[in-house]
Amino acid sequence: MIQHNDAPNELLFLTSNEGKYNEASFIMNMFGIKLVWRKTEKMEVQSDDVETVALEAAKAAAIYESSPFIIEDDGLFIDCLNGFPGPYSSYVLIKLGLKRVLKLIEDDRRARFKSAVALHLAGRFMIFTGIAEGTISFAKKGDLGFGYDPIFIPDGAKRTMAEMTVIEKSTISHRGKSFTSLAGYLKKFH
Amino acid sequence: MIQHNDAPNELLFLTSNEGKYNEASFIMNMFGIKLVWRKTEKMEVQSDDVETVALEAAKAAAIYESSPFIIEDDGLFIDCLNGFPGPYSSYVLIKLGLKRVLKLIEDDRRARFKSAVALHLAGRFMIFTGIAEGTISFAKKGDLGFGYDPIFIPDGAKRTMAEMTVIEKSTISHRGKSFTSLAGYLKKFH
Repeated sequence: MIQHNDAPNELLFLTSNEGKYNEASFIMNMFGIKLVWRKTEKMEVQSDDVETVALEAAKAAAIYESSPFIIEDDGLFIDCLNGFPGPYSSYVLIKLGLKRVLKLIEDDRRARFKSAVALHLAGRFMIFTGIAEGTISFAKKGDLGFGYDPIFIPDGAKRTMAEMTVIEKSTISHRGKSFTSLAGYLKKFH
Repeated sequence: MIQHNDAPNELLFLTSNEGKYNEASFIMNMFGIKLVWRKTEKMEVQSDDVETVALEAAKAAAIYESSPFIIEDDGLFIDCLNGFPGPYSSYVLIKLGLKRVLKLIEDDRRARFKSAVALHLAGRFMIFTGIAEGTISFAKKGDLGFGYDPIFIPDGAKRTMAEMTVIEKSTISHRGKSFTSLAGYLKKFH
C-alpha cells in the first residue's frame, strides 16, 4: 500500500513537448496538484537511424543470448518525405501498404535503403552498414523479395528489387553491402 | 583484441523476418559462414499501444530520477489507416505534416486520440489512460493546441481541437481524461 505521506505535493512531468506540459499543468492545477516541467529529450527508443535501433536491440538481446549473434535493422528513406518511413518502414508498410506510400510521393523520387547489422561477439558490439541509392517507381512491380522491394529501383538498374533474384539483389542491395562487410570482418579470424 | 578462437563457425540471426534471413544467409554462405535463424518477435521498442510506450519510458527514467514523476505518451489512431500513425504520431507529423496525412484519409474518417500517463511514485509504476473519439476534418482549422489538433473534431463538437481553448479542450480531450484520472488517484492521499 502507498502511505498517506507518499503523496507528492508536486510532480515532475518529463516531456520534451511544452504544449503537453501546459495542458497537463492546467488540468492538475484544478485539482491542486503542481506539475513541474522537467524538459527532456524524447525518451522512447524512436531513433531516426538504423544503426542505433540495431545496436539497442542487440544490447537488449545480449542480456539473455550468450552465443554470438546478429540483429539487423533496415529502412527506406524517401527524400521528398524527409526520410519517412525510415526506421519505421515495417510498421508503415503494415499500416499503410505500398499503394498509400506511392500516393505520398511527389516530384522528387530519390530514396535510399539503409541496413545496419549489429554483431555481438565475445562481449563486444560492432555495427556494419550498407546503403543502396535509388528511386521510387511509379507503380508496384515484381513478386520477388519483400517489403518495399516492388517500388525501389536501385541506381544503375532498370528494374525494381522485386524483379531481381536473391543473387542479383545481393550484389547491389543495402543488405548485400552490410552483410558482406560483416563477413569480411569475420573472415579475418579464419 | 578479439582472439582467433573467438571467430564463430556459426552465428545466430535474431529476426522475425524470414525474407531477411534468407537474403542474409545467402550472402554469408558465399563467405563460408553459416547463419542460424533464431526467430524472435520484433525487438525494437516499437509498441502499438501508448500504455506500453509510456511505461517503458518511465522505467528507463526511473533509473536516474528519484523524485515522483510522470511521463505521457499519446497518439492519434485513424481507422481507415489501420490505426496509423498511432504511437508514431509525433514522428509522422514531423516527417509528413498534416496535409500529407489528410491526403491519405479515405471515406471512413473515424479516429481517436489516446493518452497514457505513467506515474512513478514510491517505487511503483501506474498507468492512467484517456480516449477521445472523433473524426478527421477535411482541412486544417484553428491555431490553438498543437500536433494533430487542427484536423481532429471530437464527437459532440463542431470544431477542431485547435479551435478550442485549453479549458474547453481539457473537458473532452484524451489528455483531460488521463490526467483527471491521475489527479483523482493522487487526491485520495491528501
